[in-house]
Amino acid sequence: MRQSQLFTKTRKDVPSDETSKNAQLLIRAGFIHKEMAGVYSYLPLGLKVIKRIENIIREEMNAIGGIEMKTSAFQSREVWEKTNRWDDNIVDNWFKTKLKSGGEVGLSFTNEEAYSNILRQYISSYKDLPIYPYDFKEIFRNEVRSKSGIMRGREFYWKALYSFSRNESEHLDFYNKAKEAYKNIFNRAGIGDKTYITYASGGTFSKFSHEFQTLCDAGEDIIYISKEDEGKGLKMDENRVVVNKEIYNEDLKKDLGLVGDFVERKAIEVGNIFTLGTKFSEPFDLKYKDEKGKDNVVLMGSYGIGLGRLMGTIVEILSDDKGIVWPKEVSPFSVHLVRLGDKPETLAFADKLYTDLQNKGIEALYDDRDLRAGEKFADSDLIGIPVRFVVSDKTIAEDKVEVKMRTENDSKLISVGEALKNF
Amino acid sequence: MRQSQLFTKTRKDVPSDETSKNAQLLIRAGFIHKEMAGVYSYLPLGLKVIKRIENIIREEMNAIGGIEMKTSAFQSREVWEKTNRWDDNIVDNWFKTKLKSGGEVGLSFTNEEAYSNILRQYISSYKDLPIYPYDFKEIFRNEVRSKSGIMRGREFYWKALYSFSRNESEHLDFYNKAKEAYKNIFNRAGIGDKTYITYASGGTFSKFSHEFQTLCDAGEDIIYISKEDEGKGLKMDENRVVVNKEIYNEDLKKDLGLVGDFVERKAIEVGNIFTLGTKFSEPFDLKYKDEKGKDNVVLMGSYGIGLGRLMGTIVEILSDDKGIVWPKEVSPFSVHLVRLGDKPETLAFADKLYTDLQNKGIEALYDDRDLRAGEKFADSDLIGIPVRFVVSDKTIAEDKVEVKMRTENDSKLISVGEALKNF
Repeated sequence: MRQSQLFTKTRKDVPSDETSKNAQLLIRAGFIHKEMAGVYSYLPLGLKVIKRIENIIREEMNAIGGIEMKTSAFQSREVWEKTNRWDDNIVDNWFKTKLKSGGEVGLSFTNEEAYSNILRQYISSYKDLPIYPYDFKEIFRNEVRSKSGIMRGREFYWKALYSFSRNESEHLDFYNKAKEAYKNIFNRAGIGDKTYITYASGGTFSKFSHEFQTLCDAGEDIIYISKEDEGKGLKMDENRVVVNKEIYNEDLKKDLGLVGDFVERKAIEVGNIFTLGTKFSEPFDLKYKDEKGKDNVVLMGSYGIGLGRLMGTIVEILSDDKGIVWPKEVSPFSVHLVRLGDKPETLAFADKLYTDLQNKGIEALYDDRDLRAGEKFADSDLIGIPVRFVVSDKTIAEDKVEVKMRTENDSKLISVGEALKNF
Repeated sequence: MRQSQLFTKTRKDVPSDETSKNAQLLIRAGFIHKEMAGVYSYLPLGLKVIKRIENIIREEMNAIGGIEMKTSAFQSREVWEKTNRWDDNIVDNWFKTKLKSGGEVGLSFTNEEAYSNILRQYISSYKDLPIYPYDFKEIFRNEVRSKSGIMRGREFYWKALYSFSRNESEHLDFYNKAKEAYKNIFNRAGIGDKTYITYASGGTFSKFSHEFQTLCDAGEDIIYISKEDEGKGLKMDENRVVVNKEIYNEDLKKDLGLVGDFVERKAIEVGNIFTLGTKFSEPFDLKYKDEKGKDNVVLMGSYGIGLGRLMGTIVEILSDDKGIVWPKEVSPFSVHLVRLGDKPETLAFADKLYTDLQNKGIEALYDDRDLRAGEKFADSDLIGIPVRFVVSDKTIAEDKVEVKMRTENDSKLISVGEALKNF
């Protein structure tokens, strides 16, 4: 895309009530617009990042048997009364709204009820299971405070998958596959080095759930990690354990055989996987007949990721003092092509390189604007595309392109052939 | 996809309050689930259709310079007070909800205010224009009645593009391009033959707007069309005119030079394009400096399509007494491969054909279930994929596949080579 066609511009100011680093950078770089506390619109660059994250998640969910659908935002009272979660005294972050035709509807804050209610129409025999449906959708939560930018929204975009299994071993088998899929997602999103699978509180049906926690001072969670495991991220030995503060105590350490010095760290929960057992399948009468004709209650699990939170986390932990640093797989463009100077031969060279990149299927943002070099470089650093090509009067004299990685200080001259091959 | 992996099944019953043909068929075939009147969830088959429609629209919008973004569902009072549209006495279909932190937010029922508010940050010079941003998003409207299935939802998924132009001729130029893009969309969606560009009421800034109206007895609109133009659809001579009842009268006929017999027909508004002029740019102070440094108010236009309504319209006008008939470009799958019999060689033949189709990039729904032929054919007709391949003990004896188009009664035997080439 030509940058002259992109209507957003970088800006120096951010709304005065915006205190989070992720939203400040994303607003300044033109990725998002703040509608109100905890509510953001995604501008073209921001939507591109969200779509790339969505595609990573979709690929990984489909690879483990996920099947995509889309549930409504509006939720009906009668469905949520089945699990006793309609009442505002029980669930304190509902948004509800009145129908003109009478009655109230809720705005989806999670999907267990909607899924259980839909799936019970289609599950009757052991042959109907297991199934792994999932959703990308807007979720609404009536948070009292919302100060973490796009990491904790009143409105946010998430993926939730629910597993419906016949028995414990089938459930665990999928649970472990989902864990591996989540590792792939966070590695591909570029935060694997700082992300830890963390034991957190379970529920009636399982002692623990698993959270994916990314170390970050802007995080709202606190985890305990052994000093010797710090820095390993998702490459950490699976037999070693990281624990959420909510369950960390001496008894647990003994139980899990944790030895050595554990340190307290702030972290962002970027994903979670949870054994639900029959908590939702019981009230929705979600049963199947087994091979012998006997009724069994379906076992469920839930697997969530907030896409805005993941995007915000990437910005929080990978940006530097010049701006955002996108990992390759989530960057809005693969290459930022910056043209300096306006001699006809420089324009022609840069235009041709842009066309060549497009023809090779390499998505480039082409800075074809008439601005000073300093402004263009500052914008480029702020926007954070991982690879920058500069075409100037100087580089074309040598029939070359200057290439610089966003994470490095040094640039070098390469031929057009190399530019089209290696990035 | 293997049909044994698709958790939905066809069903005979529909919710007793569901009176619309489109929702009845889509529920019976497993495309949608009714959450409440005017609110539906999209099951895997339904989401596939929505995504194919979305892709057609995206391609056509991008081709005329559209740039995609995504605005929030939640809308703030102060933004809508600028145009005096916050008040429930002025806009009677708002959904509003209370924030725990105090105050109320609205749920998006349209996007003019959100776009004007965002764009005013980025428009200052003539160099910043024209721009054509658009959104796919959920829209919420507090309808008193909602009886048209997915054609009129309280919650629905739409595309809205807004044009921001420097002057009348630039606006009209884009307006006409959008009209052509819309023709492409409705032709590709398979309803071009029954769809008419219709004059409807304009507003302060234009005598007329244009609606795309599809003839259908389930429609809520009434249009007037000359007898001789009936049946022409989007191929109708552009100099001839179809008129919405809301503006049809003798004076208008004289004005537009309409002669001959006009008949009254029911129709569904599947799209509209509208000149907004400065209605929204004035209150949002959306101005640009021209080449001479003079301030000018930006001219806006709006261009909307409801994706659920389009999907519902396709079902209303193209289905037959056996079920849905999807046009090629919006069908959830290109081919329905139905296996009959369970001899090992039949299974092997069908499995191999399924793999071959996948390898050729042809998306097939593979009915690998153990059901009687009659049930499989009834399901296949109800689901409505345009091409059906049958592999049975009989066809493989001749090393052939039986092919039948959904819209035809006769089938014929073809070789696997032909099956992989011609559909």
